[in-house]
Amino acid sequence: MTSNMSQDSTLPDAPEANDRPWEDLLRHARSGDPQQLTDCVEQLSTGDQARALSRLSEDERSEVLTALSAEEAAELIRCLPEMQAANTIGMLQVDTAAAIVHELHSDEQADVLGDVSSEQAEAILQALPDDEAAAVRELTSFADDVAGGLMICEVLRFHENMTVAEVIHQLSANEDEYSDFDVQYGYVCDSEDRLIGVIPMRNLLFAKRSERIATIMIRNPLSVFDSTSLEDLVEFFDDHSFLGAPVIDAGGHLRGVIHRDAVDYEATRAVESDYLKSQGIVGGEELRTMPIWLRARRRLSWLSINVFLNLGAASVIAMFQDTLEAVIALAVFLPIISDMSGCSGNQAVAVSMRELSLGLVRPTEAFRVWWQEVSVGLINGTVLGLLVALAAFVFNGNLYLGLVVGVALLTNTIIAVSIGGTVPLLLKRFGVDPAVASGPLLTTVTDMCGFFLVLGMATLMLSKLVTP
Amino acid sequence: MTSNMSQDSTLPDAPEANDRPWEDLLRHARSGDPQQLTDCVEQLSTGDQARALSRLSEDERSEVLTALSAEEAAELIRCLPEMQAANTIGMLQVDTAAAIVHELHSDEQADVLGDVSSEQAEAILQALPDDEAAAVRELTSFADDVAGGLMICEVLRFHENMTVAEVIHQLSANEDEYSDFDVQYGYVCDSEDRLIGVIPMRNLLFAKRSERIATIMIRNPLSVFDSTSLEDLVEFFDDHSFLGAPVIDAGGHLRGVIHRDAVDYEATRAVESDYLKSQGIVGGEELRTMPIWLRARRRLSWLSINVFLNLGAASVIAMFQDTLEAVIALAVFLPIISDMSGCSGNQAVAVSMRELSLGLVRPTEAFRVWWQEVSVGLINGTVLGLLVALAAFVFNGNLYLGLVVGVALLTNTIIAVSIGGTVPLLLKRFGVDPAVASGPLLTTVTDMCGFFLVLGMATLMLSKLVTP
Repeated sequence: MTSNMSQDSTLPDAPEANDRPWEDLLRHARSGDPQQLTDCVEQLSTGDQARALSRLSEDERSEVLTALSAEEAAELIRCLPEMQAANTIGMLQVDTAAAIVHELHSDEQADVLGDVSSEQAEAILQALPDDEAAAVRELTSFADDVAGGLMICEVLRFHENMTVAEVIHQLSANEDEYSDFDVQYGYVCDSEDRLIGVIPMRNLLFAKRSERIATIMIRNPLSVFDSTSLEDLVEFFDDHSFLGAPVIDAGGHLRGVIHRDAVDYEATRAVESDYLKSQGIVGGEELRTMPIWLRARRRLSWLSINVFLNLGAASVIAMFQDTLEAVIALAVFLPIISDMSGCSGNQAVAVSMRELSLGLVRPTEAFRVWWQEVSVGLINGTVLGLLVALAAFVFNGNLYLGLVVGVALLTNTIIAVSIGGTVPLLLKRFGVDPAVASGPLLTTVTDMCGFFLVLGMATLMLSKLVTP
Repeated sequence: MTSNMSQDSTLPDAPEANDRPWEDLLRHARSGDPQQLTDCVEQLSTGDQARALSRLSEDERSEVLTALSAEEAAELIRCLPEMQAANTIGMLQVDTAAAIVHELHSDEQADVLGDVSSEQAEAILQALPDDEAAAVRELTSFADDVAGGLMICEVLRFHENMTVAEVIHQLSANEDEYSDFDVQYGYVCDSEDRLIGVIPMRNLLFAKRSERIATIMIRNPLSVFDSTSLEDLVEFFDDHSFLGAPVIDAGGHLRGVIHRDAVDYEATRAVESDYLKSQGIVGGEELRTMPIWLRARRRLSWLSINVFLNLGAASVIAMFQDTLEAVIALAVFLPIISDMSGCSGNQAVAVSMRELSLGLVRPTEAFRVWWQEVSVGLINGTVLGLLVALAAFVFNGNLYLGLVVGVALLTNTIIAVSIGGTVPLLLKRFGVDPAVASGPLLTTVTDMCGFFLVLGMATLMLSKLVTP
């Protein structure tokens, strides 16, 4: 491949022959000229490949993938978001699907088959070579967020009695197989397949070819269990600059290798997923290629909870209808106070989520966080309270209205940042996902408090507020 | 190092000798026993190191860093969030700071010095060796989000006329220097330092020692310009499985190498930063170790804009005060409608941001997205509208009140998802950061529409709503 990124880097999307590449894909797939189809696919960036596939109907997608060689189809599948990849594989004929899955790495196989229907997965596994199917079954037994679910089984494994020459011979004999992913380390095992050492490939350069690798390997290498959580893996790769780590089972047997970039990718997915969850996208993912009723139902599951929370908050207003009737101007300021408190609270939630992820704060340090938030809440609440009080006075002419809304906003800001700062820590401490729950909890409570403060104070000062 | 992750993986935080490690750090720093301090630091995870440092005052932090060797202090600095690292370096004596900075890699040097005050940066640069200072000055001339700002200058560079034996000799002579980061590729340059080939280190294993590397190298290697944007870099590493890429300037001269994990890290930071920005944390970062007035001021800059947007939305309510006075029950439902529309809109924003980042949709495809959102908005708006209409009827007994709030919520939901789905695309198309602006824009417009719909319809149907 001689195409060079340097020639078109940082240019805005280079003018394409066709802004609707899926039409080209379909045309070439139907033309019976596989080379043209291959060329067409190779010219597209990863994002455009995903986009093109998503614009085809299920049947058209199957046509294109069947027209490609299994290897090229696997390249294409590899670039899709997981949900889309699984859907696409799930729609194909079993033998086509199996041929494509066969070309994927073991961790990708596990990902895809873990997400298709169990009937389709079983059918595809039956069509794969036995050892491959066994490896995949083992990997899919692990959750997506532990080392076992992120590792690949393709690992350079050598017996401790081999010489450097024999290792180099094995490497060059299998060069094609290894060229797919840059291999950095060979792992040395004993006769029972237990991990006893590691050799950076680079060290083979300096060693005598007749030496036994047991003498040049690094003994007792750092490793992780197949049950190690994603959080611990991130910490491991933070603390060490390795590009990969051997994965062992409880008995010390080498099961596979986990690559730094697999952990990075999963960690980034978790961050993206958290953002989506905090905005009410249940499950942390939604692609607009999903059926409408599915998208609607998933969004509705979160929205309906919010409706009830909102009705609860609104009932506070209902309690003070008489005060509202007497001082109608209050109705103008209720949404301002609830919205501004929500904004302040959300800022505190975001900073807490950030500090938790960096390890700068522990879930047990809620009091410390609360103190740091209250100080900022006091300052900002005062400024905002003054602004809103001024607006109320200008609007209505009544000084006491300004006082009521101003003090209410100041107080509610302090409440909001207190809750916003501490709720993520408390949720995390009790094992609840802070990304999903922080938002609605915060909004409902601050709304209720805000309405209660404004209307409660107004009720107390009713005589001063009603124009005689 | 023989400590093995396997021994304590996935255990909850192993019981520590001290839950306040910063006290230990300070004690050891003052005791005059450098080994104890080193041991103490090494036992802490990266997160705990950052946490411990953040709990010390500036002077105490300087004490600890000065007590460590420059190499160990650099290890510590390397693990801190960028903002904290720069602050910490900025507080040290110039010679201590320079000694620590000297131990960092060129890209880390550029990051840190790019964020300290210019006087401190200049002073530190003066204290570094000339060639190092020159390299850093060059790197800091690049922005943080292009290849030049993310690359490292330490690269294995060989002349085309060298033999394999000479290359291996150079590698083993400099083994210490290279052991810091796993080197995968050597780059071959001509006499003018222009990049002409690449050698995966692995290939040196298979070659005859007397061969000239020009015969075994891969010619015309894929490379990126120093001006290549982060977005293009992410695409590059998506499309190719390399662990690193050579960075060249406009004249084809090799300037450095950019590692996949540096790009991954930056891409993840961008996602985290977007989340923080969308919640109103200006600049995409806030650490509670920042001074209170700075935190308050930054949050306030976003909050004050929101106050004015909210006042604008509330003025719609002010226009309809008479209607409100006549049908006070409407005041109970105004916040529900504005909040629920905001929720629906935010879901649409999140999905659009997600699809944009995956490349599944282009900024020019706003109409397509609008159509997909309207369909979901219709379904969800109807369900939510019915729920809220029922609540209104139960609360008030008036069927027309239910009709007004129900239809208003249905309509406003459709408006909200239309805006929420398309605004990120339009903002991106016009070069505005969608993460910051989507939220406030969406909320203000949907609030105004929501209030207008409810109160406008109520005004039209006033006779039916007022209990005689």
